[in-house]
Amino acid sequence: MAALDAVLSTIDANLDASTERLFDLLSIPSVSTDPAYAQHCLRAANWLKNQLNGLGYEAEVRATPGHPIVVGHAKAKRKDAPHVLFYGHYDVQPPDPLDLWESEPFAPRLAERKEGQDIVARGASDDKGQLMTFLEACRAYEANGGLPCNVTFLFEGEEETGSPSLPAFLAAHKDELSAADLALVCDTGMWNSATPAITVMLRGLAQEEVIVRGPSHDLHSGMFGGPVLNPIHVLAKIIADLHDEEGKVTLPGFYAGVPELPEDIAEQWRNLDFDEKAFLSGIGLTRVGGEPGRGVIEQIWARPTCDVNGIIGGYTGAGAKTVLPAQASAKFSFRLVGKQDPKAVMESFRAFVRERLPTDAKAEFISHGASGALQLPFGSEALNRARRALEQEWGKEAALVGCGGSIPIVGAFKRDLNMDALMIGFALDDDRIHSPNEKYSYTSFHKGTRSWARVLDALAA
Amino acid sequence: MAALDAVLSTIDANLDASTERLFDLLSIPSVSTDPAYAQHCLRAANWLKNQLNGLGYEAEVRATPGHPIVVGHAKAKRKDAPHVLFYGHYDVQPPDPLDLWESEPFAPRLAERKEGQDIVARGASDDKGQLMTFLEACRAYEANGGLPCNVTFLFEGEEETGSPSLPAFLAAHKDELSAADLALVCDTGMWNSATPAITVMLRGLAQEEVIVRGPSHDLHSGMFGGPVLNPIHVLAKIIADLHDEEGKVTLPGFYAGVPELPEDIAEQWRNLDFDEKAFLSGIGLTRVGGEPGRGVIEQIWARPTCDVNGIIGGYTGAGAKTVLPAQASAKFSFRLVGKQDPKAVMESFRAFVRERLPTDAKAEFISHGASGALQLPFGSEALNRARRALEQEWGKEAALVGCGGSIPIVGAFKRDLNMDALMIGFALDDDRIHSPNEKYSYTSFHKGTRSWARVLDALAA
Repeated sequence: MAALDAVLSTIDANLDASTERLFDLLSIPSVSTDPAYAQHCLRAANWLKNQLNGLGYEAEVRATPGHPIVVGHAKAKRKDAPHVLFYGHYDVQPPDPLDLWESEPFAPRLAERKEGQDIVARGASDDKGQLMTFLEACRAYEANGGLPCNVTFLFEGEEETGSPSLPAFLAAHKDELSAADLALVCDTGMWNSATPAITVMLRGLAQEEVIVRGPSHDLHSGMFGGPVLNPIHVLAKIIADLHDEEGKVTLPGFYAGVPELPEDIAEQWRNLDFDEKAFLSGIGLTRVGGEPGRGVIEQIWARPTCDVNGIIGGYTGAGAKTVLPAQASAKFSFRLVGKQDPKAVMESFRAFVRERLPTDAKAEFISHGASGALQLPFGSEALNRARRALEQEWGKEAALVGCGGSIPIVGAFKRDLNMDALMIGFALDDDRIHSPNEKYSYTSFHKGTRSWARVLDALAA
Repeated sequence: MAALDAVLSTIDANLDASTERLFDLLSIPSVSTDPAYAQHCLRAANWLKNQLNGLGYEAEVRATPGHPIVVGHAKAKRKDAPHVLFYGHYDVQPPDPLDLWESEPFAPRLAERKEGQDIVARGASDDKGQLMTFLEACRAYEANGGLPCNVTFLFEGEEETGSPSLPAFLAAHKDELSAADLALVCDTGMWNSATPAITVMLRGLAQEEVIVRGPSHDLHSGMFGGPVLNPIHVLAKIIADLHDEEGKVTLPGFYAGVPELPEDIAEQWRNLDFDEKAFLSGIGLTRVGGEPGRGVIEQIWARPTCDVNGIIGGYTGAGAKTVLPAQASAKFSFRLVGKQDPKAVMESFRAFVRERLPTDAKAEFISHGASGALQLPFGSEALNRARRALEQEWGKEAALVGCGGSIPIVGAFKRDLNMDALMIGFALDDDRIHSPNEKYSYTSFHKGTRSWARVLDALAA
């Protein structure tokens, strides 16, 4: 612990210099979506490589079909130390609309507010500030004899455009990258400004489009209506059948692999004091829908869904038209949790649809992809250690949270490198990421850096 | 009967002259939808007025906001004779595509074929040929001492463009036009070339659009999916609930006023030898849907329906989007029969929808109009007389048929003049109306004229 204390002291003492380095990076307009900024993306990549080299780490800027990826390797001072892969991204969203910014988006500054200071700039929170908390923690270790873990650094420059080059890059460098035991991903947030969080579950997603066909062509509803099959009715019946009265999904086998929440996690989530009323009123609703007896948080983080995201058939213009349509189609998506098998769910869904087709109705299926949920086992050692480390820094138990959506990079690590990810970040809900006046709390930056120092120490203990 | 025989002989003897007059009318390109032909529409109206005047009838070409309407009045030779209103239209569809015509569309000719001769020209069947059958029957009566019925003639020039000027015209001339007891409408067809038909039932139509709203705006299905109401699901459930397993409509009270088909009519329809297999294969189907045990003809002519004519909600472009939509909408139509009350059906439908809205779902309704079915009572005296008259001419019982769609003019007579209509026409399914090489069977023209002579005689008997 003496060594960690020294590292934390170094972080505190060097906070101004750390902030200056972050400001350097924030001043590079590394907007990935606009080709006009490509040189700045390259500059940011080189800047990161130089930082890694400056710490004595091997590092390269590697070309991709898009913006380059920076890969670095740092050795721990101990030979038997664990090995982590740290992921961050140096690219940012465009700053537009510019006229809503109170200061230049790429001229970072400290802004005072009642609760403390904020670092204001495009990318301050997403993801340069978060990325630098880890780098500055490493720097403090190097000033105190070296890292407790082996670290592979992976900084991409296309996260804001959907990481198009990353999967091929992971595949091409699989041996090099999968030498690590665990990925650390810093692109997530705290529960609130006082409560750190570790994101331990991401729902999976399977998407399927169904086109139901009936008559060979559109028909006049007067001349044909009655004996003729209406594909909209067939499709509506299928959609209606997909949920029972209790809001549960009726697909056979759908809940296979869906775990009940461990009581301690359920208890912890109840204690998060999530404001359901505010959540609902923000979207114009008054009542929690879905599965009765399960709250908003549990349903979004830990329960699977079946939703129709779009439907179309027949005449949809203004007024009315007496047409019996030849076809109708709908786009379905399934959010998956636990060990639900996306392939089995899709097969069950297709069978479910086929069983409900009356004579003369045909269905065509179009898959829009399927990937399973990701979950760091609740009792895993790395998770427990990281959780205790965060509690020591923040004086408050770290919330184990879920995320209803997917974080593609985490799925890619699992799929392509077979590597779990520990998702820890210090962003706050009001950081205005992707919006004007993006900020990162100075406390997040400072205590985030200290948190990583503690987490690395704990993982190596 | 001696008087009628004389009239029929006159018709036979003057057939060539009658045909020449029809050719005169057919040579006027009275296309109503194209303003370039407006002068020809006026010419056709004047031509009809002159024909009526030539027979000694009072007649006028009356201006409307669109093409003029011809109104004429003919007195019966007997004072206590019944009074009929005969409706036809002098306008025609454009002849395009011209290159598919085997002769000039407005240069009428007689074409030989195995089964007999055809009159070929745009408007030969729809509706100039049909209209002239009635006028030539009147002419034969005038050559034999006068008409057996008082007749009001109503010839419009906008039927092919939806009769936009007619409702206001009926309202403005209500007293004049509603002096008649019964409307005769010649815009319909035979069952087949050997079997005359009287159209005795037209289904009504009520149309309603429903917009179901849930969240105040579109939401990300990852961040919100589960506890949040999906309007597409709500709408699909409503649509699914509208029919039971037997294909019957479940709206409370929906079947109030729906008569079971009288056994003699059902028997007659069975004997029509309708080819269900050919009907189905023509639209890519193999099985009669809808209400089990009821055939195609019964369902289309005599049973009510509920159909969704269009549905839309959420993302409907290419690929997939993880959106929970704020709203979904569908266009519903109800074909009505017998004494079903359109207003009651619509009220039942709205209540049905409202009862199925979960908390936080709202529905907006947009009416696209509602009108009841029209039916000439099966046992009515006029119908029985007309039926016997047709049987005498064709040597075969006249089929009492229905029409699944609406014929707006018949609805207008009922609504605006409170007048029933006897729909008799001699068109055949292969007349190619609205298409190149439109034709009217010479037999239809000849025996159609004779048929009207018999019908007028029968109505006055």
